[in-house]
Amino acid sequence: MNVELLSHKLQEFATQRNWDKYHTPKNLVMALAGEAGELLELFQWLTDEESQPNQLSSITRAKVEAELADVCLYLIRLADKLSINLEDVCHQKILVNEEKYPIHLSRNNAIKYNRRDE
Amino acid sequence: MNVELLSHKLQEFATQRNWDKYHTPKNLVMALAGEAGELLELFQWLTDEESQPNQLSSITRAKVEAELADVCLYLIRLADKLSINLEDVCHQKILVNEEKYPIHLSRNNAIKYNRRDE
Amino acid sequence: MNVELLSHKLQEFATQRNWDKYHTPKNLVMALAGEAGELLELFQWLTDEESQPNQLSSITRAKVEAELADVCLYLIRLADKLSINLEDVCHQKILVNEEKYPIHLSRNNAIKYNRRDE
Amino acid sequence: MNVELLSHKLQEFATQRNWDKYHTPKNLVMALAGEAGELLELFQWLTDEESQPNQLSSITRAKVEAELADVCLYLIRLADKLSINLEDVCHQKILVNEEKYPIHLSRNNAIKYNRRDE
Repeated sequence: MNVELLSHKLQEFATQRNWDKYHTPKNLVMALAGEAGELLELFQWLTDEESQPNQLSSITRAKVEAELADVCLYLIRLADKLSINLEDVCHQKILVNEEKYPIHLSRNNAIKYNRRDE
Repeated sequence: MNVELLSHKLQEFATQRNWDKYHTPKNLVMALAGEAGELLELFQWLTDEESQPNQLSSITRAKVEAELADVCLYLIRLADKLSINLEDVCHQKILVNEEKYPIHLSRNNAIKYNRRDE
Repeated sequence: MNVELLSHKLQEFATQRNWDKYHTPKNLVMALAGEAGELLELFQWLTDEESQPNQLSSITRAKVEAELADVCLYLIRLADKLSINLEDVCHQKILVNEEKYPIHLSRNNAIKYNRRDE
Repeated sequence: MNVELLSHKLQEFATQRNWDKYHTPKNLVMALAGEAGELLELFQWLTDEESQPNQLSSITRAKVEAELADVCLYLIRLADKLSINLEDVCHQKILVNEEKYPIHLSRNNAIKYNRRDE
């Protein structure tokens, strides 16, 4: 994914509309979480089975694609505004998670390591 | 960003821990929104000013990076499970937004076109 | 539920700590959504079955109670700051929903009336 | 607020439409968080100033009332399904918060006690 190109397009989009003033990190975080909320609404009454890709109607699938795009675009915009390299922090986080959830302790158990004894 | 590599790493991570059973699209949507919630918590009491990158303490910045990574990783995992190409849907969505918010009608006004008359 | 008493206690709590400046409607909305995110995290890997009250461990139940309280307290605080009577708007919304989802059209189908034809 | 009456009305509403099967705690948590997301969208581009009640347009105010009602109704429904007494857990949580944020340590500082040293 060419994140730089997408960041650039989003910056251009905002500049043309004089929307940069709205795009503070705080506001972008709200917008990102708001779009995640729309994604929740698409899945909230579905069973796990019905949420599988081969079970989604084409209309629902189109909506899911649009919401995933919204989340992704706000994420890219936010990272750009904060000068955070998404790819770098993702790889770092995977390393952190590998330490946090050692294979032998985590098999079949998605509960966080620090809640494992509860 | 090499989304394919990250998708592959996430799939491997889940397989090694036998976590695939947890990673239904529905559950991943919840996890994504939960991480967006953690991002909200980092910014909720900050002013717009304080949310700017040069104002964040190094500790807060590290937390923001970790939460952005979590959102990004769940987004990539979800897209993978739904066979959605994130880059494609992002570019499509930008085109949709360009129609939805024509420059001459949207300058200085981030309100959605269909709410503009309210 | 004595909402007035709770509102009063929350106001007092904020005043004593000089936190009123943080409690703008915008910030309280973020805090409310952040707490809803924590609730998501408690339920995200549970099956529908496991999310039933008789299946929750006592530790998870205590966490769920604490998160429900957090959501409720921010909701009350926000309504207080906006001078909105929660009970009134709830009763109004039920009336709206009764029109929106007529019984004969909505049986077994939780999809919104305006998406019913899709 | 007569929470029992509202719980009863919501149960009746669900029973008449045969929607009880959708109302698992897990799904209700998603619905609650989805409504919180809609609230975010109403406030995301407003300044703190503009989010004050005397600044909201009557149309925005009506939308905010409707979203607050949605959050409140799902909260009441969820608490009912989990047999949690909202009023009780709210009062308990205030006591917890009073210990967690002692007045002399928390004045002018909304950061959580356990992050105060950062």
